[in-house]
Amino acid sequence: MSHNEQPASDALQRFRALTGKIKHFDELLGVIYWDMRTGAPRKGIAQRSEAVGTLSAESFKLATSAEMGELLAELTKPEQLSQLNEIDRRLVTETHKDYERNRRIPPDMYQQYVVLTSQAESAWEEAKENNDFDGFVPYLEKIIDYNRKFIELWGVKATPYDTLLDMYEPGLTTVELDRLFGELRARLVPLAEAIAKSEHKPDTSFLEGTFDKEAQKRFSKLILKQMGYDFDAGRLDESVHPFATGLSTGDVRITTRYLPNDVTSALFGTIHEGGHALYEQNIMPELAGTPLSTGTSMGIHESQSRLWENMVGRSLGFWQRYLPDLKKEFPGLLDDVSAEQFYRGINVVQPSLIRIEADELTYNLHIMIRYEIEKMLFNEGLSPRDLPEVWNRKYTEALGVTPGTNAEGVLQDVHWSGGAFGYFPSYSLGNMYGAQMIATAREQLPELDSQIAAGNLLPLKEWLTERVYRYGKLLDPSDIIERISGKPLESTYLCDYLEQKYKEIYKLA
Amino acid sequence: MSHNEQPASDALQRFRALTGKIKHFDELLGVIYWDMRTGAPRKGIAQRSEAVGTLSAESFKLATSAEMGELLAELTKPEQLSQLNEIDRRLVTETHKDYERNRRIPPDMYQQYVVLTSQAESAWEEAKENNDFDGFVPYLEKIIDYNRKFIELWGVKATPYDTLLDMYEPGLTTVELDRLFGELRARLVPLAEAIAKSEHKPDTSFLEGTFDKEAQKRFSKLILKQMGYDFDAGRLDESVHPFATGLSTGDVRITTRYLPNDVTSALFGTIHEGGHALYEQNIMPELAGTPLSTGTSMGIHESQSRLWENMVGRSLGFWQRYLPDLKKEFPGLLDDVSAEQFYRGINVVQPSLIRIEADELTYNLHIMIRYEIEKMLFNEGLSPRDLPEVWNRKYTEALGVTPGTNAEGVLQDVHWSGGAFGYFPSYSLGNMYGAQMIATAREQLPELDSQIAAGNLLPLKEWLTERVYRYGKLLDPSDIIERISGKPLESTYLCDYLEQKYKEIYKLA
Repeated sequence: MSHNEQPASDALQRFRALTGKIKHFDELLGVIYWDMRTGAPRKGIAQRSEAVGTLSAESFKLATSAEMGELLAELTKPEQLSQLNEIDRRLVTETHKDYERNRRIPPDMYQQYVVLTSQAESAWEEAKENNDFDGFVPYLEKIIDYNRKFIELWGVKATPYDTLLDMYEPGLTTVELDRLFGELRARLVPLAEAIAKSEHKPDTSFLEGTFDKEAQKRFSKLILKQMGYDFDAGRLDESVHPFATGLSTGDVRITTRYLPNDVTSALFGTIHEGGHALYEQNIMPELAGTPLSTGTSMGIHESQSRLWENMVGRSLGFWQRYLPDLKKEFPGLLDDVSAEQFYRGINVVQPSLIRIEADELTYNLHIMIRYEIEKMLFNEGLSPRDLPEVWNRKYTEALGVTPGTNAEGVLQDVHWSGGAFGYFPSYSLGNMYGAQMIATAREQLPELDSQIAAGNLLPLKEWLTERVYRYGKLLDPSDIIERISGKPLESTYLCDYLEQKYKEIYKLA
Repeated sequence: MSHNEQPASDALQRFRALTGKIKHFDELLGVIYWDMRTGAPRKGIAQRSEAVGTLSAESFKLATSAEMGELLAELTKPEQLSQLNEIDRRLVTETHKDYERNRRIPPDMYQQYVVLTSQAESAWEEAKENNDFDGFVPYLEKIIDYNRKFIELWGVKATPYDTLLDMYEPGLTTVELDRLFGELRARLVPLAEAIAKSEHKPDTSFLEGTFDKEAQKRFSKLILKQMGYDFDAGRLDESVHPFATGLSTGDVRITTRYLPNDVTSALFGTIHEGGHALYEQNIMPELAGTPLSTGTSMGIHESQSRLWENMVGRSLGFWQRYLPDLKKEFPGLLDDVSAEQFYRGINVVQPSLIRIEADELTYNLHIMIRYEIEKMLFNEGLSPRDLPEVWNRKYTEALGVTPGTNAEGVLQDVHWSGGAFGYFPSYSLGNMYGAQMIATAREQLPELDSQIAAGNLLPLKEWLTERVYRYGKLLDPSDIIERISGKPLESTYLCDYLEQKYKEIYKLA
């Protein structure tokens, strides 16, 4: 045995050093992206994008290098793999998967793409601000062209769009997603229709007003602390589009945006990103410095943001506990509002234009629209120039609302400027994963609801840490949900949860 | 000729690409350092420092690579050099100088040093906060040990400390600096003694009070704009120790710190860093993306910060124009103060403990103390553990004040935590360069003083841009000062300036 172990151990050491170096570069790039989104000066963006392209290319070259190929060839031999511990084995197999995909992309092409998307995000911000789709469309065309070429190089799965989906949710297909979304639609559209007919509309008038920004900030921080977010391992800033970024478990940053006339935007945005952050802050230390120290899929990641935002943050118990604190921050604005009223108000179902401000029910329709449009772009050759028309038509059909401007329509989301086609379904997958998880949590933690109503959010955080967070990328999404619930992902949990919640709120039969 | 040009042109292209890549890496590292100093979460510092070490080592490897050696061997041939334009020639000779120094340091040793100094800055911040010199001394010992080794590897000049001085001010020696500092001391110590005996002490009582932080911030921004600082190519943040960092001409950031009970700290700190920033924002575009797009020496850099801070910011004309704006920000605090009174108050000469808050005159004594201590460390084997004792003794002797704690003594400056031994003299060099420059400016811009008194600061900025800023590292410090004044650096300009200013303020014979 000792004769056989020696080369593996040597290759393993070199392999760990190489993946560690890539992780270092990616961590630094993460800080740069955070900076670009939170206030880097406009005039430095062009050169910064070039610098980002240079370092990204360096990281990419390491990930696709001959050395990486040789180490992986050695370490993926069955007799070598079997000798590795669980972490190293996963590190090898996951890196191998990335290597097989990345080595098909020419490094120069990759570098040009990174520079393009880095510049495109600033261009998107400007275009959104100026309602200037025409100014953004050249970027979009190029980004989509690149992605079409990437798909060919990676290899087309059942459809070109399936190739993209697989990147965010390994193994997910359009067939599976069509089925899941079909099931959701079959139960949620009738529910939305019944709600529209209900006479018991929640009062939302108290949500109008002018909410002091500093007070919003203080309350956001309070709730993050209550959730167990560690401010010594993170920070809260502002950006046009809220996001969370895990640079290391010791540095997981959140952004939000404060709207003066809407207290719920920053509030639920912060809780959403806080859910992402809890995931990244609580990955087991054994994975630190490796590419496994991150979320296992975007669907599982969004399950945590959506679970905390909605299943906790939009629950009655939560507001029984925290409404008094909120009232204190905004004297005079919410004085006569009861927890019950507040709960009903923040859960009003109202077809609307902006995804990130949508209610829990119609949110999924926003996702389905994007999913359909992305399929059209990659499977049916839809031209980017036609996006506003398609977007507006689908919003009118599915939600009965029509964007007045592209800024509140097709330009509303940051994702496409970064080339993240195939990402959007993660949000609805997250809703489904989240519902399935919390149903199990409620069985295993019989006190869960009274704990939330008492402001004791840490038992839930611990439960999720033990079953989701700590594993990082060590387990597949399917393993995680099956270990928790004994079943694969199903749409029924989410439908049951939404029906129960909204039938009560809208007093439906 | 064409036969000879071809290989140069090929080598030149590769050389430009290689130095451009190094510049990209250094720009990204600059953002990371800025982030670490302006709020990066504590728990992420250890891993971030490792990542910084990895990328710094990569940059260092490129700078000392065989490829760099070959390209430089080719391009420094006289027949090649003579064919290059001015920028490329300077790029080659400056890179060659760095190469010759850096290639003597083993890359592993360099990486360990980068990780050490990166961690040491956080350790210094904590030590300063907790007045814990013992907690910081292990870092200091290691950093000094590394520097002693570096000096040996680089080659000891006249003395070991001369080797360090040369890094910040090319060509500067302890002999020259002993002479310049001797001349300063000979004229400034008697001046300080005469001031101490003067009965005409400025009133400073109006500088006491509680100054709203947001108002301080607004006024800092106002003055920066008046100086011509471009906020689209920079930003103003807070940090424990104010600094400026030029990431590219399009991204030059400043930090300051707001003390509630001292309006002058942020004010003059901001103008100081603003002077550094004007330099970096106004380097000619032809140098962008090359290692020449930065200041030519730390002495010239500090000449700009100190010139703006003192010769502009602490002048009577400046306050004739801006005191009314300052009063508006702090209603009730400065109402009855005249420009003349304010000018005298902010120029009070008072031996004190903290360098960055010292008056213009005794400031140079703070620098001389550090210079003497650094010489003792590197030329006489002073042990870092003995620093507090030596520091306190020298302050008592030279300034007549004794630090009550190490936090306000030996721990006050960030420089040593980053290994910047040999940097401090730059400040007094800057004072001398600045005085020599502004004396010439006053001859060539006869309206200068009335322009400043009218709040028209841009002619001075343009004058400096044309003679200093635009050249970046294209000219040597000695070229710059001789082109401006027709003479090498002299101590007389600073002494004349200070004598004239303080004799008037203190009504000395």
